[in-house]
Amino acid sequence: MDKILDGQDILLWLNKEHTYMVKAEAGKQFHTHKGFLLFDELIDKPWGSSVSTNLGAIFYALPPLIRDRVLKTDRRTQVLYPKDIGYILYQLGISNGSKVVEAGTGSGALTMSLANAIKPDGKVFTYEIDARSQKIAATNIERAGLSQYVELKLGDICLGISEKNVDAVILDLATPWLVVPHIWQALAGGGVFISFSPTIEQVMKTVYEIEKHQFIDVETVELILRRITVAENRTRPETLMTGHSGYLTTARKVTS
Amino acid sequence: MDKILDGQDILLWLNKEHTYMVKAEAGKQFHTHKGFLLFDELIDKPWGSSVSTNLGAIFYALPPLIRDRVLKTDRRTQVLYPKDIGYILYQLGISNGSKVVEAGTGSGALTMSLANAIKPDGKVFTYEIDARSQKIAATNIERAGLSQYVELKLGDICLGISEKNVDAVILDLATPWLVVPHIWQALAGGGVFISFSPTIEQVMKTVYEIEKHQFIDVETVELILRRITVAENRTRPETLMTGHSGYLTTARKVTS
Amino acid sequence: MDKILDGQDILLWLNKEHTYMVKAEAGKQFHTHKGFLLFDELIDKPWGSSVSTNLGAIFYALPPLIRDRVLKTDRRTQVLYPKDIGYILYQLGISNGSKVVEAGTGSGALTMSLANAIKPDGKVFTYEIDARSQKIAATNIERAGLSQYVELKLGDICLGISEKNVDAVILDLATPWLVVPHIWQALAGGGVFISFSPTIEQVMKTVYEIEKHQFIDVETVELILRRITVAENRTRPETLMTGHSGYLTTARKVTS
Amino acid sequence: MDKILDGQDILLWLNKEHTYMVKAEAGKQFHTHKGFLLFDELIDKPWGSSVSTNLGAIFYALPPLIRDRVLKTDRRTQVLYPKDIGYILYQLGISNGSKVVEAGTGSGALTMSLANAIKPDGKVFTYEIDARSQKIAATNIERAGLSQYVELKLGDICLGISEKNVDAVILDLATPWLVVPHIWQALAGGGVFISFSPTIEQVMKTVYEIEKHQFIDVETVELILRRITVAENRTRPETLMTGHSGYLTTARKVTS
Repeated sequence: MDKILDGQDILLWLNKEHTYMVKAEAGKQFHTHKGFLLFDELIDKPWGSSVSTNLGAIFYALPPLIRDRVLKTDRRTQVLYPKDIGYILYQLGISNGSKVVEAGTGSGALTMSLANAIKPDGKVFTYEIDARSQKIAATNIERAGLSQYVELKLGDICLGISEKNVDAVILDLATPWLVVPHIWQALAGGGVFISFSPTIEQVMKTVYEIEKHQFIDVETVELILRRITVAENRTRPETLMTGHSGYLTTARKVTS
Repeated sequence: MDKILDGQDILLWLNKEHTYMVKAEAGKQFHTHKGFLLFDELIDKPWGSSVSTNLGAIFYALPPLIRDRVLKTDRRTQVLYPKDIGYILYQLGISNGSKVVEAGTGSGALTMSLANAIKPDGKVFTYEIDARSQKIAATNIERAGLSQYVELKLGDICLGISEKNVDAVILDLATPWLVVPHIWQALAGGGVFISFSPTIEQVMKTVYEIEKHQFIDVETVELILRRITVAENRTRPETLMTGHSGYLTTARKVTS
Repeated sequence: MDKILDGQDILLWLNKEHTYMVKAEAGKQFHTHKGFLLFDELIDKPWGSSVSTNLGAIFYALPPLIRDRVLKTDRRTQVLYPKDIGYILYQLGISNGSKVVEAGTGSGALTMSLANAIKPDGKVFTYEIDARSQKIAATNIERAGLSQYVELKLGDICLGISEKNVDAVILDLATPWLVVPHIWQALAGGGVFISFSPTIEQVMKTVYEIEKHQFIDVETVELILRRITVAENRTRPETLMTGHSGYLTTARKVTS
Repeated sequence: MDKILDGQDILLWLNKEHTYMVKAEAGKQFHTHKGFLLFDELIDKPWGSSVSTNLGAIFYALPPLIRDRVLKTDRRTQVLYPKDIGYILYQLGISNGSKVVEAGTGSGALTMSLANAIKPDGKVFTYEIDARSQKIAATNIERAGLSQYVELKLGDICLGISEKNVDAVILDLATPWLVVPHIWQALAGGGVFISFSPTIEQVMKTVYEIEKHQFIDVETVELILRRITVAENRTRPETLMTGHSGYLTTARKVTS
């Protein structure tokens, strides 16, 4: 089981900036910007093996983690970074068996991360208003082998949530405050709601709406990630960094 | 299943600063700093219900999440914050079925988080040199209902790792660089190693040691969490914050 | 001139947490929390000399810098940190000869810093509505030897600024947006306006008001200062830090 | 005096990204990337006036502040940001009359800021080993009208500082630890030394050397500046930011 099999997804890694997510196909070539390589030189080799292109570039074959798949999903709708996703998953408190509602699905990046966290016995119900986005998400989720843990729902979550008694709700959309009343209805007692918003106006409106309903432990944070260059006599935080992705507002439902 | 049962752990929540983790016991009182309450007023009520103490303080009964349990573990050995734990779990790429090695166990805070992520089919092998810490950890893990997913190992991981072909290794100890060669031996190809260290000297030594072995995708980051006060005309980042917990260094094993 | 003279202010420094700002008085004792010292042991000695208390604590005698005086002013009204003051002085573009308007005066901490920057030929016009604060400020500014560069004005700057053609205006008050029209009137063409505000609502209102007047180069920033512990094998950012003091909004007046 | 005169430097401002520093020349055109403008339309007008190019772009004429000049100096050697310069000037405690030693001169960006702070009665002694850099610096300082406050010194400050009894020393060079003993000799008692270094290894070596000499109040910080977008429903920290410029280590000389 620790060998690369024909038909499996591989993350081909040249360096941090240059990776490819591809399906191994016996007998086929794969063309990179540094020449082509042969899948046959990887198939049946252990994960972590390297292969050389005809131009001498060395690629390593890694088993794709969820974070690799998230990085490779359609980026047009991608705003969540690993720092945010890790925090969301942990704060939501979900694990095997959890029922989670998500909106919007977007490219399915967060959906895959949620599904991976609640498998094998949980379920992700994910709402999306744009049918084209949903189709892209379906493909990404299918390829990650997570379709059985996900129910894709086409529709506007601002109009209501049909699930009840769910453990957690996560929103990444433009008007989270419109969904707050529905979230209270959908959550089980003690359940967790998180909203991700880039702007402070969205945060304010959402928090003010949360305060009108029975939620406690309301908290807004932002996470800043600094990469550190570690090298002899050159150790220092990197010069350029992502200054802001978004704010994360957490709340927990109470019932009386 | 969404009701509070006799014998279950409850997180009693007054406000962010005042919470209690207690086992519900029919017929008993629970004494808080704001008067006592009766468990009978919570048992068989839905999660999220409130109860009033004899002095009129309102406590809410929440189902304990892993993050609640982590906050309530013995704090003498606790240095990891939710921001760090969430990032670690996500970066490690673990989920149901994963095999993970951890050291040191400490109070079991991270161990519980790892076990919660890899259940029901995975396993956490956690090393600790201090028998007393291990005993505290065993109690915490048992109480969280996660013992079956954890193998507690008494011993010094700097001397070697007996597991092979594991998916991930996470270190939170003073001399991570001494463990790096053993980690390469223990990891499956493509497996992930993360080290958490408060000081930059630990990071430097660890990265320099990693570079002597077959690892790729080496990266050191730190995560900074800002709490935001959101309130009409008072919205702003909080005045006092945790400036630093530690650096997180990630690497992935390759085999040739 | 590099000797400590009778009657001069001295910063007595035991360590970062324990300093005293005192006037040297020949023949007198000074009582600290670590015993008393004799000014005679410092007078006529070079700056930087040490003196021992009767209990053996070593204090160093430093010439007070403006930043030392700012730290020692009445702290009830103090919100500006050195990081903010340094940035303000530099962004305002003031130097010898500049005319600056400030409000509110508060304890005079920023006033002293401004006066120190524009001496000997400039002037600071500083508005304060609270007579008691103004009196404290007057004492602080007098003691720092900067009175001749400061005109203290008792009154509400929201009602108007009587100075014209000033080089810079700096506001640290609760309703900066109310002052924006007056600032445009008071500034010379190309002059700089900075507003310091702790909350984002103040910033928004101020920026929206600025945009209604002829200002360019409008920019809001916040400065975060991290202290680094540098010590063998313990080098790291400090655990606890000030997460937020305030936002700084800069703009420059144009005339057509 | 508040009118634009023939022969004066003007900062022509189109927007934050597009500015020009030029000398007004009566009867001449100035060509921008958005068409050309006529200096005659600005000369004798008030500062802050606008002028239109033949293509309709509106430029504002601002009196150049020191920070504008710093931004416009040769950028090849420029690493200090306004946040760092403001902090340095304030921490050094310099003002009219101060004597300051600087190394290296580089393009003269910091030199100009120092000279502007200590004028009219102070002096900046600035060391540079590269004659070509020094020549560029001389031109920049001359143009800013600050030459009389600056003594340019060609030579290696690591070999010694010829000035004595100076108020402050500021280093921005690769091996600050080699200069520390000379700095102690050059400073007056209680004088301030600041070193700017991008890497943590430079900081460590410098702090360890400082600790071998009679310095107190040793402190290392870094300053992080976040720009905030303030706009209706789009208010948020900017996405991309400068993550690190350098560390600032401060110390004060004592004598016994």
